[in-house]
Amino acid sequence: MKTTHTKNLIAAALAFTAVIARAADPLPSWNDTTPKKAIVAFVERVTREGSPDFVPPEERIATFDNDGTLWCEQPLYFQLLFALDRIKTLAPQHPEWKTKEPFASLFKGDVKGALAGGEPAIAKIVVVTHAGMTTAEFEKIVADWIATAKHPKFKRPYTECVYQPMVELLAFLRANGFKTFIVSGGGIEFMRPWTEKVYGIPPEQVVGSSIKTKYEMRDGKPVLMRLPEMNFIDDKTGKPVGINSHIGRRPIAAFGNSDGDQQMLEWTQAGDGARLMMLVHHDDAVREFAYGAESKIGTFSDALMAEAKKDGWTMISMKDDWKTIFAFEKN
Amino acid sequence: MKTTHTKNLIAAALAFTAVIARAADPLPSWNDTTPKKAIVAFVERVTREGSPDFVPPEERIATFDNDGTLWCEQPLYFQLLFALDRIKTLAPQHPEWKTKEPFASLFKGDVKGALAGGEPAIAKIVVVTHAGMTTAEFEKIVADWIATAKHPKFKRPYTECVYQPMVELLAFLRANGFKTFIVSGGGIEFMRPWTEKVYGIPPEQVVGSSIKTKYEMRDGKPVLMRLPEMNFIDDKTGKPVGINSHIGRRPIAAFGNSDGDQQMLEWTQAGDGARLMMLVHHDDAVREFAYGAESKIGTFSDALMAEAKKDGWTMISMKDDWKTIFAFEKN
Repeated sequence: MKTTHTKNLIAAALAFTAVIARAADPLPSWNDTTPKKAIVAFVERVTREGSPDFVPPEERIATFDNDGTLWCEQPLYFQLLFALDRIKTLAPQHPEWKTKEPFASLFKGDVKGALAGGEPAIAKIVVVTHAGMTTAEFEKIVADWIATAKHPKFKRPYTECVYQPMVELLAFLRANGFKTFIVSGGGIEFMRPWTEKVYGIPPEQVVGSSIKTKYEMRDGKPVLMRLPEMNFIDDKTGKPVGINSHIGRRPIAAFGNSDGDQQMLEWTQAGDGARLMMLVHHDDAVREFAYGAESKIGTFSDALMAEAKKDGWTMISMKDDWKTIFAFEKN
Repeated sequence: MKTTHTKNLIAAALAFTAVIARAADPLPSWNDTTPKKAIVAFVERVTREGSPDFVPPEERIATFDNDGTLWCEQPLYFQLLFALDRIKTLAPQHPEWKTKEPFASLFKGDVKGALAGGEPAIAKIVVVTHAGMTTAEFEKIVADWIATAKHPKFKRPYTECVYQPMVELLAFLRANGFKTFIVSGGGIEFMRPWTEKVYGIPPEQVVGSSIKTKYEMRDGKPVLMRLPEMNFIDDKTGKPVGINSHIGRRPIAAFGNSDGDQQMLEWTQAGDGARLMMLVHHDDAVREFAYGAESKIGTFSDALMAEAKKDGWTMISMKDDWKTIFAFEKN
C-alpha cells in the first residue's frame, strides 16, 4: 500500500515538474533551433519598453496564412475536400451531374480527372457548393462538416490536423500583446465557423477569399444570400490588398508557406522597424507531407526560396524545427 | 491668507465631488431620458452573468454609423468638404479644370452647381481627389487635412465636431466588454487615420466604402496604388454586407441616424436575444442642425420613422436627450 502511495507521489511530482517546465517554455513543440530563437528574440525586441525596436501593443499585428501554415493542405486543400463531400450530398437532387463535368468524373471517384479542367472546373464546383444559400445556412453546412469529416491520411477531424507549434506561436504572440490574424486564400466564411475554437482567432480577425453576398428579405426576415460570383481573391498580390482592407495597418510579423504568401511577406518587411517573416517548409514525409516547387498545392518555387534567402526570411523545417507537428502524435 | 486657503480647499473639494459624480455616471452628457435609460438597461441585461439575456464578451459587437451619428455631417459630408479643399490644392496642376464641370463651378464658389451633376459629378470629384496615389500617400493627405481644416459653422477642427454623448457611449460599451465598430458609407481610408485617437476605434474596426487598390513594386518597394474604381459601397443594403465581410458576426447593438442605416438596424434586430437599435434625430438647429425627411444629406424619411416606431427602435432627440452635444460647448 505504502509503496503504491510513494510511487503515485513520485509520478505526481514528475508530472508536476513536466507541467512547470512546459509553463516556462511557451513554445514546447519547437526544437531549440534557429526559428524558435528568432521568434523569441523578435518578441523580446518589440515588447521591451524603452527598446529602440519597441512597438506599442495596438501595432503588434501578426498575420498567418492558413492552408499549409496553420493546418495541413494535403492531399488537397481541405476546403476542396469539403466541396467534394458536399457534391456527393447534393448529387441525388442533381441527376444531370451524372453526365456533366467536372461532376461525372467525381462520381467515378476520379478527382484528378475532375480537376483536370483547371480553374473553370474548380469554379463550377465552388458555385454549386458555396453559393445559393444564406450565410447562416452556409455556416451550418460548414460547422456540420467540420464536426464529422475526417482527414484521409490521419483519420482525424480536420481541426486536429493543425500544427501544434503554430498554435503555441499564436498563443505566445497574443500573450505578448499581439493581435493575430488569418490572411488566407481560402474562403473567409469557410474558416470563421471554427477558427476561434481551434486557433483562438475570432471571426473579425479572419481575412480570406469571398463570394458576393446580397441583402434580401425572406419571409419578412433579412438574410444575406451567397451569390455565384467571386468578390475577392485573397492570394498572392491580393494578400496585401486584403490586409489593407480588413486590418488597415501593416503587420510586423507574417507567416506563410508558399508562393501565395510572397507578397504578404514583402509587404510586411517593407514597413519601418523590427520585422519577422517566416516560411514553413514541408519537408517531413513521415510525420506530414514533403512537397515544394513541384507541388500544385502549396507551391514553394525556387524563386520564393531565393527571395527568402536574399531578404533574410526565416525558414521553418517541419522535420528539423518542430518537435511535435500534431497534438495527436502524443496519444 | 487663511480665508483664501479655505476657499481653495472648498473649491478643490467641490471639484473633487464633481469628478466623483462624473465617474459614477459614465454618460454625463446624456439627459436622464428614455435613450440613456434604454442604453443602461440593455448593457445591464447582456452583461449580468446568469441573466437569460447574458451575451459572452466576444459576441458583444456594437456598430456605429459615422456621418451624423458620431460626428456632424452638415453643411456637407466632411469627406466631400475634404475633396473640395483637395481640388483647390490640385487646381494649379490642372488648368483644364477651369472650363470643365464639376470643377469650373467649384472654382466660382458654386458648390451647389458643381453637385447639381449628381452622382457622376461626385464620382469625378472622388476620382481626382481619392485615387492615383499610394495608400500611404493618401493617409498623409488625410492626416494633414484633418489636422488643419476647420468646420465652416463651428470654426473648429472637424475632429472636435464629434458628438460628446456618443464618445461617452463608445467608452461605456467598451468598459462593458463590447467591441465597437464604425460601419459608415464614408471612405474607410478617410476615417482610419484619426478614428483611434478621436473615438478609440482602431483601424481594424472601421468598415466603410472603398475604392480598389493594386499591389505594385515602385522603386523596388511594394506599394498599394489607389485605383479610380469603386470597390464597395458600404451604405443601405451594403451595411449588412460590410458587417458580414469585416466582422463576421451580427451586432447586438447598432446606432445610426438616416435611411442609410435602415438595413444595419434591421440586420441587428433579426438576431436572437437582447438587441438595441437607436437612431439619432437631428432636431437641434441652435446647437447643431435640424434636418430630416427633406434633407439630401442624412435623409431621415417618413418610412424610416414608421419602421423605427413599428420595430421599437429608440429615437435620440439631440435637443431633448443630449445635455451636451460638443465638448467645446463647455469652453
